[in-house]
Amino acid sequence: MVDALDDFYAVIPAGGVGSRLWPLSRADAPKFLHDLTGSGHSLLRDTWDRLEPLAGADRIAVVTGRAHRAAVEDQLPGIPDRNVFLESEPRDSAAAIGLAAAILHRREPDVIIGSFAADHVIRGTRVFEFAVRDAVEVAREGYICTVGITPSEPAVGFGYIKRGQELIVDGARDASLVERFVEKPDLETARAYLADRDYLWNAGMFISRADVLLAEIEANNPALHAGLLELAEAWDDRERRGPVVDRVWPTLPKIAIDYVVAEPAADKGRLAVVPGHFDWDDVGDFASLAKLNSGGRKNDLAILGENARILSDAASGIVVSHTTRVISLIGVKDIVVVDTPDALLVTTSEHAQRVKGVVDALKLTGRGDVL
Amino acid sequence: MVDALDDFYAVIPAGGVGSRLWPLSRADAPKFLHDLTGSGHSLLRDTWDRLEPLAGADRIAVVTGRAHRAAVEDQLPGIPDRNVFLESEPRDSAAAIGLAAAILHRREPDVIIGSFAADHVIRGTRVFEFAVRDAVEVAREGYICTVGITPSEPAVGFGYIKRGQELIVDGARDASLVERFVEKPDLETARAYLADRDYLWNAGMFISRADVLLAEIEANNPALHAGLLELAEAWDDRERRGPVVDRVWPTLPKIAIDYVVAEPAADKGRLAVVPGHFDWDDVGDFASLAKLNSGGRKNDLAILGENARILSDAASGIVVSHTTRVISLIGVKDIVVVDTPDALLVTTSEHAQRVKGVVDALKLTGRGDVL
Repeated sequence: MVDALDDFYAVIPAGGVGSRLWPLSRADAPKFLHDLTGSGHSLLRDTWDRLEPLAGADRIAVVTGRAHRAAVEDQLPGIPDRNVFLESEPRDSAAAIGLAAAILHRREPDVIIGSFAADHVIRGTRVFEFAVRDAVEVAREGYICTVGITPSEPAVGFGYIKRGQELIVDGARDASLVERFVEKPDLETARAYLADRDYLWNAGMFISRADVLLAEIEANNPALHAGLLELAEAWDDRERRGPVVDRVWPTLPKIAIDYVVAEPAADKGRLAVVPGHFDWDDVGDFASLAKLNSGGRKNDLAILGENARILSDAASGIVVSHTTRVISLIGVKDIVVVDTPDALLVTTSEHAQRVKGVVDALKLTGRGDVL
Repeated sequence: MVDALDDFYAVIPAGGVGSRLWPLSRADAPKFLHDLTGSGHSLLRDTWDRLEPLAGADRIAVVTGRAHRAAVEDQLPGIPDRNVFLESEPRDSAAAIGLAAAILHRREPDVIIGSFAADHVIRGTRVFEFAVRDAVEVAREGYICTVGITPSEPAVGFGYIKRGQELIVDGARDASLVERFVEKPDLETARAYLADRDYLWNAGMFISRADVLLAEIEANNPALHAGLLELAEAWDDRERRGPVVDRVWPTLPKIAIDYVVAEPAADKGRLAVVPGHFDWDDVGDFASLAKLNSGGRKNDLAILGENARILSDAASGIVVSHTTRVISLIGVKDIVVVDTPDALLVTTSEHAQRVKGVVDALKLTGRGDVL
């Protein structure tokens, strides 16, 4: 057991649907509500369980859509009502994390917040805790700090963080400034990054004093900052919150936190990174999901679904069974089969990224009933 | 329009389940009851429609299982009750065709019967009629006559008939003795057969005087012959038929007509063949079904199912949709997807023959509910 960190508040933005995991992920059953690892818990619950020792059960906030309130509270029975921040509609990550920062800063001016996606998979809890502990110490010094994952393979599906100058911070074993962010590379570049220990995977984790984060938002997007302050000022007043949310939230700029906070801070030498030596995956598509659930072994068939009735012969890949049907797979390699009551997907690991295109096509052709 | 052939009676054995087409074909919905070509009719109905001009609606008999009586009568509203011959259990093709021969011979001693599978696909009705007309003339001379299909490709999934000495028969344009039957060849051999015009596909069609067929059965399997005569003698007596069927039918040897009739007759120089220059397929597996429904075009996705809701992106092969689910196929080539309410099959054309193994495994593992 570890002690909870002083001044620390964990924030879990639980927003994205996970279109590339359709028809498993849906508008009304987004990725973070699914058990994608066979752990018996949703990704959201696993995220909570990881953060609870660091923050304490009464110091974890979730930012989610109004439609998901009941599901979130069902997954997280320990969450205080006041820590569920409901969006009236999705406004991207800068608004979501900024809202949490503004509310928590009003409640507690010295708070340090750490933002962690609700739908990522992490293995190696103790190592995760070390990294967050270090990041909090770096944040205490006034930096915005991210945790960069040490790559275990030449991944082309993730963005990278290039480490720069070393930072000496009391209590943090290995911190650096971020030199720059790098977009998803091609395979050759990814191999070079893997060999060069200064490239880390960008897992979208940000740890920062709330006032520092808000100042960065103010500097780069004053309109967003003004809206967030207005929301936060009214938030804890039950009578005022509703009308202000209805009026202000839909006007906030839709923009990712990377552009409003991380990249500008890196340019100013205010963004730090500590390495995270744990297994991490954002489970971005079914290829990732297959790898996660087969332990990365070739020629294995990963099976997800409590009541799966699978009969396979020379098949590999992943089958997700959300019905009681018998599923027979013969001679199909690296296959992806997702069987749900109203929609069936058949593709391969190689084409898993194209699932999003199908979701878009379903929208355009009036078949949004299955999204 | 053609005139019906004198003395001719068509017999349609409607027995096999079509295990290689599971989960489309089932014990309670065998292959012959399905529309596999998008014609809007079942294969059984198409077979009837092909034979009706040659035999007349009151001279077509169907041999089928008791369980299929209602479905057969539903498909063939014109069939006289006395021409539906019901088996109490499957006893293979010699018993089925032999039963029809024995019954019809008792009713009409000079009858010439032609036996045609209920679940094959034929395109080119007029050419089919020419071939059967020729075969009937050959049968009138006392031969057992088959129709051999002129190959259109080096097929490895069919047996072949090697033509021998030419036969001069009045009214038959191109008849020969059968020199021998050849098992399914490898590709190289099939290519040689295609080049050599004396090899024809064995489509399992037999046209013969009923007395000649029965004499051949008697010579090669006296027990089967005795049982068939006992059944036929009682058949048209409503009170006697039931008890005799219950007693005798289950004791009949289970054997294919090829071994009791065709091969021995060929050895004795009593088996003839006329060529059939029409398109024919036994739709033995999903690879055949895919080819039939895509017109043989590469990179096409054939879709079967009236209510299919398919969304495909760079997919080829065949999808059979017997549900109302949205089916999305992405980047899968030569795929076979069969979607039914209680079972789903995913394989490829290359592995289509292995479906039978899955059916066997389902039986062995107590999942016969989906067969």
